Amino acid sequence: MNSLPPRVHIHEEGPREGFQIERGPIPTAQKIRLVDALAETGLADIQVTSFVHPGKVPGMADAEAVVAGITPRPGVRFTALWLNQRGLERAIATGRLHLEGKLTLYGSDAFLKRNQNRDPEAQRAAQPELIAMYQAHDIPVRTGFVTAAFGCNFEGDVPAERVVRLVDEMRAIARDHGEELSLVGLGDTMAWATPERIRRVVGAVQDANPDVALSLHLHDTRGLGLANAYAGLQMGVAHFDAAVAGLGGCPFAAHAGAAGNICTEDFAFMCAEMGIETGIDLEKLIACAVLAEEIVGHPLPGKVKTGGSLAALRARLG
Amino acid sequence: MNSLPPRVHIHEEGPREGFQIERGPIPTAQKIRLVDALAETGLADIQVTSFVHPGKVPGMADAEAVVAGITPRPGVRFTALWLNQRGLERAIATGRLHLEGKLTLYGSDAFLKRNQNRDPEAQRAAQPELIAMYQAHDIPVRTGFVTAAFGCNFEGDVPAERVVRLVDEMRAIARDHGEELSLVGLGDTMAWATPERIRRVVGAVQDANPDVALSLHLHDTRGLGLANAYAGLQMGVAHFDAAVAGLGGCPFAAHAGAAGNICTEDFAFMCAEMGIETGIDLEKLIACAVLAEEIVGHPLPGKVKTGGSLAALRARLG
Repeated sequence: MNSLPPRVHIHEEGPREGFQIERGPIPTAQKIRLVDALAETGLADIQVTSFVHPGKVPGMADAEAVVAGITPRPGVRFTALWLNQRGLERAIATGRLHLEGKLTLYGSDAFLKRNQNRDPEAQRAAQPELIAMYQAHDIPVRTGFVTAAFGCNFEGDVPAERVVRLVDEMRAIARDHGEELSLVGLGDTMAWATPERIRRVVGAVQDANPDVALSLHLHDTRGLGLANAYAGLQMGVAHFDAAVAGLGGCPFAAHAGAAGNICTEDFAFMCAEMGIETGIDLEKLIACAVLAEEIVGHPLPGKVKTGGSLAALRARLG
Repeated sequence: MNSLPPRVHIHEEGPREGFQIERGPIPTAQKIRLVDALAETGLADIQVTSFVHPGKVPGMADAEAVVAGITPRPGVRFTALWLNQRGLERAIATGRLHLEGKLTLYGSDAFLKRNQNRDPEAQRAAQPELIAMYQAHDIPVRTGFVTAAFGCNFEGDVPAERVVRLVDEMRAIARDHGEELSLVGLGDTMAWATPERIRRVVGAVQDANPDVALSLHLHDTRGLGLANAYAGLQMGVAHFDAAVAGLGGCPFAAHAGAAGNICTEDFAFMCAEMGIETGIDLEKLIACAVLAEEIVGHPLPGKVKTGGSLAALRARLG
């Protein structure tokens, strides 16, 4: 307990998760500008776009153009999201993305039904097909993800034991098909987590899987995002998804107040001030947050971009 | 460690701290409406106004009218702020307020100079005068407060040992003048705290003062408010200041991004979901947050008022 990790790895999801939910069309050049700026902050993993049906998510119709426009940079992996074979093939075709396979099970049957129109059996059955798809393209499958791992607006609380069972199932499916998961992500898709729940669920999954790293994907819909992240850090979790300036939100959560992920610069600030290495230049990241706000044209929820970093204040005080 | 308190006591400061900072004049009737609504939520302590110079803080010129207009309610203590004898006399004259004396020292000499134009010696010397003033009116002095207990925009980091010394000094001053402090508040006036710093400073003050309860006053300027509050809860802290909807901010912090206190309903939500008793009807409190936003006429930072409580969702799910 209270064993903060010496270093955290942040997967920046702002450009994908953020621009997907914005009402107005965001010019492709602006998306590229933000991604290029993010790539100069020290962030090692940046999810730049989503290869989804342009008819369904018009804001992502320029996925190829975004990827073609960004500037490669040593040490930076550009990642993307896809939901099916067609999407993956589009991502592969760019030739410029870091590609990894991921398995996904759901903590909530009701949300799975609503989101994918599938029952849990069908979702499990789909995973070997995913593995086969990745193997056909020589793409490693190292990550498993549990959506709605803490609770669901359509089903209620998700018990820790269910999450442990789902992780078990995912690892077994992977192993049965020649893959070994080394990272398991827990998604608080609809913001049901509290710090104590994070400790409980993370602890249960860690106890059953001491050989696997955990990652947290925390939405800030009810304001507990950073408190939950801190609870995760206390449990030694070292992988976090985050979105610059707090861009984004989940359109499928069918929830008026659904907010984005935890804000990257606020989280990075908290980590840095607690002595946890992030590899990030916070002042550059704050500049990206200001840029993101300029690009979307409305206030974004991150606080440090307004409040300022303490390192900057200390430097001024000498 | 990780000994959450079974119950927390929240001192609601929204009406005072919030309306003080708003640009436009807030009609007195609206202030009264919000206070009366807050008094029905189960909140036991509500700071309703500030008896300060009407020329300096025009938004508080209606302090007497606000106090005269609110409806007394059993179990609810209406409190107020004052900065000098004149203010205290105005508060006493209302005959409707719960009055308590408070001593204050500063974690930062630079901020004390800026805020009060005093050096630390003069600030210490002023405390016995305060005690005499309270004693002359039969008002108990039980609380000590350390302003800027975690850091200062004008001076930098504040070491835990300094805070321990200031608490020592305040307790000694009180004792030397026939009073005994039973509650010590630590103010993160300019948002320098992180969860780890909260644990360190709170732990140091607790170790030196096992017979005194602690209270936290946390500004959310850098987004860590609730994470810091959680760290305080883990240390057993059971007294918190908060502002409904996240109203407010400190005009004297001379900081563009200065945000208000932690948001009452977000904090109460976090506590309730972790099994900590607050005495608050969360749905009624959320309605107050919506009302506060209506009254000020612009978005306020609280999240649960948009995201909704989980208790409401659970009730709907049956």
